[in-house]
Amino acid sequence: MRPPEQELENLGDPETSPLRNSGSYSATHLGPSEEWRKQRGVGSPYLFIQMNELLGSPENQEWRETGRWILFEEKLDLEAKHWSSPHVPTLSLSSIWELRALLTTGLVLLDCSVQSLSELTEQVSRLESLNPEGRERLKSVLLQRPQHHIQPMCWSALQSPLWQKLPPGTEAAAVLVGELDFLTQRLGVFVHFLEPVVLGTLTEVPLPMRFVCIILGPPALDKGYHEMGRAAAVLLSDPVFRWSACQASSPQDLLSAMDAFLEKVVVLPPGGVDLTERIPPPKCLSNVHKRLPSQLQESKDSCNGNISSKRDRYGYEHEPQPTSKELQRTGRLFGGLVQDIRRKAPWYLSDFLDALDAQSFSAILYIYLATIANAITFGGLLGDATDNTQGVLESFLGTAVAGSIFCLFAGQPLTILSSTGPVLVFERILFAFSRDHGLDYLPFRLWVGIWVAVFCLVLVATEASVLVRYFTRFTEEGFCALISLIFIYDAIGKMLSLAEVYPIYRPGLSGDTGSTPYGCLCYFRDTKGGSSHWSLDLGLANVSLLSPPECALQGGQSRGLGCHFVPDIAFFSLILFFATFLCATILKHFKSSHFFPSRVRKVISDFSMVLAILLGCGLDASLGLSTPKLIVPSEFKPTHPDRKWLVPLFGTNPWWLCLATALPALLMSILVFMDQQITAVILNRKEYQLQKGAGFHLDLFWVAMLMLLTSAFGLPWYVSTTVISLAHMDSLRRESATCAPGELPRFLGIREQRLTGLVVFILTGASIFLAPGLKFSERMKLLLMPAKHQPDLLFLRHVRLSRIHLFTTVQLVCLGLLWAVKSTAAAIVFPLMLLGLVGIRKALEWVFSPQELSWLDDPVPEENAKKPLLGNPVFLSILSPKSELIHQLRTPEINISVN
Amino acid sequence: MRPPEQELENLGDPETSPLRNSGSYSATHLGPSEEWRKQRGVGSPYLFIQMNELLGSPENQEWRETGRWILFEEKLDLEAKHWSSPHVPTLSLSSIWELRALLTTGLVLLDCSVQSLSELTEQVSRLESLNPEGRERLKSVLLQRPQHHIQPMCWSALQSPLWQKLPPGTEAAAVLVGELDFLTQRLGVFVHFLEPVVLGTLTEVPLPMRFVCIILGPPALDKGYHEMGRAAAVLLSDPVFRWSACQASSPQDLLSAMDAFLEKVVVLPPGGVDLTERIPPPKCLSNVHKRLPSQLQESKDSCNGNISSKRDRYGYEHEPQPTSKELQRTGRLFGGLVQDIRRKAPWYLSDFLDALDAQSFSAILYIYLATIANAITFGGLLGDATDNTQGVLESFLGTAVAGSIFCLFAGQPLTILSSTGPVLVFERILFAFSRDHGLDYLPFRLWVGIWVAVFCLVLVATEASVLVRYFTRFTEEGFCALISLIFIYDAIGKMLSLAEVYPIYRPGLSGDTGSTPYGCLCYFRDTKGGSSHWSLDLGLANVSLLSPPECALQGGQSRGLGCHFVPDIAFFSLILFFATFLCATILKHFKSSHFFPSRVRKVISDFSMVLAILLGCGLDASLGLSTPKLIVPSEFKPTHPDRKWLVPLFGTNPWWLCLATALPALLMSILVFMDQQITAVILNRKEYQLQKGAGFHLDLFWVAMLMLLTSAFGLPWYVSTTVISLAHMDSLRRESATCAPGELPRFLGIREQRLTGLVVFILTGASIFLAPGLKFSERMKLLLMPAKHQPDLLFLRHVRLSRIHLFTTVQLVCLGLLWAVKSTAAAIVFPLMLLGLVGIRKALEWVFSPQELSWLDDPVPEENAKKPLLGNPVFLSILSPKSELIHQLRTPEINISVN
Repeated sequence: MRPPEQELENLGDPETSPLRNSGSYSATHLGPSEEWRKQRGVGSPYLFIQMNELLGSPENQEWRETGRWILFEEKLDLEAKHWSSPHVPTLSLSSIWELRALLTTGLVLLDCSVQSLSELTEQVSRLESLNPEGRERLKSVLLQRPQHHIQPMCWSALQSPLWQKLPPGTEAAAVLVGELDFLTQRLGVFVHFLEPVVLGTLTEVPLPMRFVCIILGPPALDKGYHEMGRAAAVLLSDPVFRWSACQASSPQDLLSAMDAFLEKVVVLPPGGVDLTERIPPPKCLSNVHKRLPSQLQESKDSCNGNISSKRDRYGYEHEPQPTSKELQRTGRLFGGLVQDIRRKAPWYLSDFLDALDAQSFSAILYIYLATIANAITFGGLLGDATDNTQGVLESFLGTAVAGSIFCLFAGQPLTILSSTGPVLVFERILFAFSRDHGLDYLPFRLWVGIWVAVFCLVLVATEASVLVRYFTRFTEEGFCALISLIFIYDAIGKMLSLAEVYPIYRPGLSGDTGSTPYGCLCYFRDTKGGSSHWSLDLGLANVSLLSPPECALQGGQSRGLGCHFVPDIAFFSLILFFATFLCATILKHFKSSHFFPSRVRKVISDFSMVLAILLGCGLDASLGLSTPKLIVPSEFKPTHPDRKWLVPLFGTNPWWLCLATALPALLMSILVFMDQQITAVILNRKEYQLQKGAGFHLDLFWVAMLMLLTSAFGLPWYVSTTVISLAHMDSLRRESATCAPGELPRFLGIREQRLTGLVVFILTGASIFLAPGLKFSERMKLLLMPAKHQPDLLFLRHVRLSRIHLFTTVQLVCLGLLWAVKSTAAAIVFPLMLLGLVGIRKALEWVFSPQELSWLDDPVPEENAKKPLLGNPVFLSILSPKSELIHQLRTPEINISVN
Repeated sequence: MRPPEQELENLGDPETSPLRNSGSYSATHLGPSEEWRKQRGVGSPYLFIQMNELLGSPENQEWRETGRWILFEEKLDLEAKHWSSPHVPTLSLSSIWELRALLTTGLVLLDCSVQSLSELTEQVSRLESLNPEGRERLKSVLLQRPQHHIQPMCWSALQSPLWQKLPPGTEAAAVLVGELDFLTQRLGVFVHFLEPVVLGTLTEVPLPMRFVCIILGPPALDKGYHEMGRAAAVLLSDPVFRWSACQASSPQDLLSAMDAFLEKVVVLPPGGVDLTERIPPPKCLSNVHKRLPSQLQESKDSCNGNISSKRDRYGYEHEPQPTSKELQRTGRLFGGLVQDIRRKAPWYLSDFLDALDAQSFSAILYIYLATIANAITFGGLLGDATDNTQGVLESFLGTAVAGSIFCLFAGQPLTILSSTGPVLVFERILFAFSRDHGLDYLPFRLWVGIWVAVFCLVLVATEASVLVRYFTRFTEEGFCALISLIFIYDAIGKMLSLAEVYPIYRPGLSGDTGSTPYGCLCYFRDTKGGSSHWSLDLGLANVSLLSPPECALQGGQSRGLGCHFVPDIAFFSLILFFATFLCATILKHFKSSHFFPSRVRKVISDFSMVLAILLGCGLDASLGLSTPKLIVPSEFKPTHPDRKWLVPLFGTNPWWLCLATALPALLMSILVFMDQQITAVILNRKEYQLQKGAGFHLDLFWVAMLMLLTSAFGLPWYVSTTVISLAHMDSLRRESATCAPGELPRFLGIREQRLTGLVVFILTGASIFLAPGLKFSERMKLLLMPAKHQPDLLFLRHVRLSRIHLFTTVQLVCLGLLWAVKSTAAAIVFPLMLLGLVGIRKALEWVFSPQELSWLDDPVPEENAKKPLLGNPVFLSILSPKSELIHQLRTPEINISVN
């Protein structure tokens, strides 16, 4: 007798659990593995159940396939001649009761060992109280070849899409239902085969049969037989009933299994569901496990994660943030860094071997395009902000060098570096400061970089990264919202400034001479003789009405206030701006539309940003207006003509500046630390099931090293970026193969390795030589508005709306304060304010109860936390029904919006 | 003993059925009427059920409200302190069985007549096998005052929103559940009161109590008591069980009622629903009726319409189109017209009285704005198409006159007339013809109008309108798609032509002198003396670089190819076009968003078009560019300066033209007939439950009369328009008031009257004097793209996909042909082609089976149709499970997209 728990435990997830224990890591098996099945001595966990019904006039009856089940029901819509979508079957209690009654008096053959359909037919008809003629007719009916929707060609029906999906070893069951006019009473047969046996063409896919259920009877008015047949099929589709039926040694055991099934069904009152609408399969198949012994309930769930853990308002489970091992203070100088290296070193070889999969190629393409778009966009922004001391070339070069180094040596190689975000904002502030005080920018920046690196190394040495436990979602959200706001504000401001550079001509306001197209003449010097530029049209000498470029071409000189007027640019730029934004938004949401297959939709959605940029550029190029373009150098030399690659230590700056820069560097260190660690915290969330662990100290160490390198060469500063890193992880998701119709793939983990990131950055470096071709239109960089959705409202059941609003208001006030500080002369201290967020969050504990905070935010860990923060469990168990404690368990959805 | 059918039949629809029989028509009662309740001698059909649970520590227990039911379950989320959304309760079978077992041995008091809670408590505790101390403790527990979520103030809790909604006469039930440590065995009590009695503050709303169910027992580990209490509440929320419980005379009757309930529940296999997600209420509560005797099943359904009727691919039920009475041929000349007048005359007074409701005001405002927008839009289009022989003024005047007359006298006064659609297309063709042949347009048009009127009268006389039975959805769709396509094509063409009139300056293409802003001088005649216009800037005499308008102002003359250049207009117009379209689309879909209350959303959505137009105008006005504007006359005289109001009979045309015009008039008559009758068919669909009947002949008669009138005065031609008419009907929907949470309002019919339409057109007429203020921007008229959605895929279950595609392909080919014909020189015969659609539809019967056509289209009626077209019923009943025959029953949704 096989233990049911073992089999059922692994029903959904046959491979991950041994991996965790053994410590070895394999990413190649996605379906139920062959070994697993051999070890257990069982076939596939799937059972294909088909119902055949006797249809047609009494003289001309034939078996026709009318339904099939694996996890869900599919019904053959006979008129439309196609399968319905997989749906949850609805039964009536009476159909189950009738089936039970029929089997009580019927024929139950357990551990049967017949070898063919005729043998089975013989057994079935012999045992019945029929006259000899009836027996012969019954036999001939049962031996009739059934009509399947897809005609099986014995063992060559491998073309069936279903057959190709079902794992080897899948068994079948047949339910035969019909009305026979020569029968005088109902006839119920249930057969379980000891060894699965091939019974001709009973099922559409040629699988060995494990169960057969026959329900026949005299003609009846209602659809009773049909419903009883469905009830039998639904029973067989339940893994627990199936296991019990396999173990049953007497008909009574079978009836007990039915009763156990009935105990667990869900009952809806009459009218509770609209029976004309088919119920779609639930997203989560966790309920099977509720029926297992309790020690297994805790350890396993088919939708990932622990049943008993809490979910916050995003549906994410949470524990006091990242796994404790990585964030335990050793108490030694650089102790955390040493530990990180020790922990990551054994994985180093597998970090390259694990990448050998086709999925890596698409991940590389996807992230490469995102990185390139990012490098162009922020290269342009950086050029604007720093008077071209850095530009697109520096952006590409820096991304390639910094990214490659980080991917090779960092603790979390899935991270993608970027020069976006708060560091860019700070750079802008620094540049404005240096300009206002007449400083030589790059040497000034070099010293800031050196100091930041020093401070970061101090943070590494003192194991300051253990403080990330205090970065809860409250801090993350405040930080991310500020960054988004800054970029949206910049985008709109940039757009509006275009209308100043290229004014719009308004007839009513023509006094404003700058905005009139009229008023421009082309003068020619009269040294060359009088007649050469005689304008016939005007009757004037040496004067022409050519446009400024043409005038210059012919050696003339344009004069007049109207000469600088370039029409249409402002409006056309606006059109480009919105068209690109709209296109990107629409394509992004294309994933959830109902057109095209889901794979096509996903590709279009993933590449929405690239497609939108291409559309914008195409539009611009096709019309050929003189819109402002991004300056891309044609040679491999710094964008600014006056500088060399290596930045001088002092330049024209006074010597003491190398000490004074320690102050802004201190502020920037806060920024770098927070930005880097918030991304790291998000990436290392427990729901992504990372196997190789994080490396907070190691990551920060490399950020410090790169800070030195990029400062010395005048390249942008790099920190981990959340959005592209998450996209990177998402493109490396491993999911289980789905076998049954209606089954959703399960999340198996992330393909953790260093190779995809490395290749992406090498490609980015190679793209420098494509630079002259990258004359992308400048406004494309303004597409930054991240759209976040909050679909899951589970937390609304546990926290009062007024408290939620209070929490949100606090966040908004914080954001407003941050914004205000950022906009005033005190801008340079805004990193300090960001740090203040952590303090405010701590202060919130005086206002909100731990329960509320645990739903609205992550819990802040206590120094010596000993008991969980879930409040009084007795109180909870009284107040909440059971169903509430099984929180919505779902595969972590990585929320991506590249750029 | 009350008959259950009567009570239950009227549960959902207490008032419509008597109205149908009596012939009288009342539109004032929307809730369950007082009389109905008196007649039946019963209270409201609603029962408010509340569950109170004993919560807290054993020493400090108190009753707390934890759930409530009317039609659906609402659960009190105790932590969040608010009610959950109404949802379908899910039960376990065991909880119902346990409840049944408890009541078998428990105390069942039927037709009880206690007068107070203490009396009831006395009875309950006396009968139990308790020691005296236990009795006292039980009594004191039961008499404890419960804690409700909303504290009731005895009989002053009228502020509760629920209480205000529940109709007078609603009764209550209380389910009391708890664990008591002094009990040694479970205690189950079920009480039915002969007369409802007020029992203190057992429930949050102070209603008289009809049932009380008490489930108490010793402390248990599981949530058994809670689930048993829920089971009792769900049982009581079922009207059939409730009725049986009222009739029960012995405990055995009560148990039988529970068994009957169990027979009808819907069973889902374990894992079939995700129990963490609450099941939303179904859209249709039809299942109660399935449990009534069969003769009632056919006659009544709470979601309107007949259960046994067929639904097509839009979910609309259909019968061989409109009701037969109105479309029966009398065989006499003008027999149909006379019959129409006879049928409509008795309703004439009520046509005005029925309008006296607040709803009419909002309908008037809504339709007035839609009509005005329409008059402006198509007035502009008409002006363009006919060289301003008609314009916005004619459009307003014609709409007011024609609309008012039609509303006063037509058969279907809900119809709104409009000059849009195919008639406008035909007018354009006619104008092009008259221009090409040098004809005087308006007299030519007058004769066409006269002939059309004559032909229409012939159609009325010969009762040709009975042919509308052949206008199935196939014809309607072809017709509507063509009209939409024409307007979308026009809109885009118009937009593109703007770029020709206002060219865009492209630096690379400056050879094209028309599109350069440079090249314009202002000359002054030198008659006035040399120095007055000496341009200092240029060093030239009598020449200046002023813009053309300023030059003209100063007495100069602009010369040069660049003088005609107006910048920015093309792109700005494009921005206006898309901004208005986008704004309208977004606001239109605002209805289905989740922000703001549904009433606000509906208003915003309904007025989306007006708001979008206002936004566009505001944008245009605020920037003050010289975009092209609509020409609106400032005086009350014809738009074209050369004509008088009354059109001359011949003008400069030859006399024989009055005969020759019969040919185009014949073609146009087909168009008018089809356009008018297709709208009429759509408006008189059975699902709108119109009580006063249609008047196909009468409507056509008035269209003919108006044709004469408008032709004589050079006003646009008018035919009924589908979209605004449907919007009109939708704004006059009568819906039942909803009482229970989660209950959806039911459609009760349309407020049929003449007044709203009449007032709309009178207001339109009055708006002529606002004309000078209506300088709406011209491009607004291009917003015509109707968006149709096909959400219901029920027909997919019955027709093969390939057949559906074939049907659609035929429709597309037809549309392509129509479009081709319309675009060639043969355009004038395109009305004939439209008629051809009906023939093609008939020919389709050779290709498609009647079953397929009945799902894809409406059936074409046979001349002497005797049997229904539903195919072999035996065949159907074998193939389809029961649930399939109860088609999706829903309130007809009027699909509106005003222009």
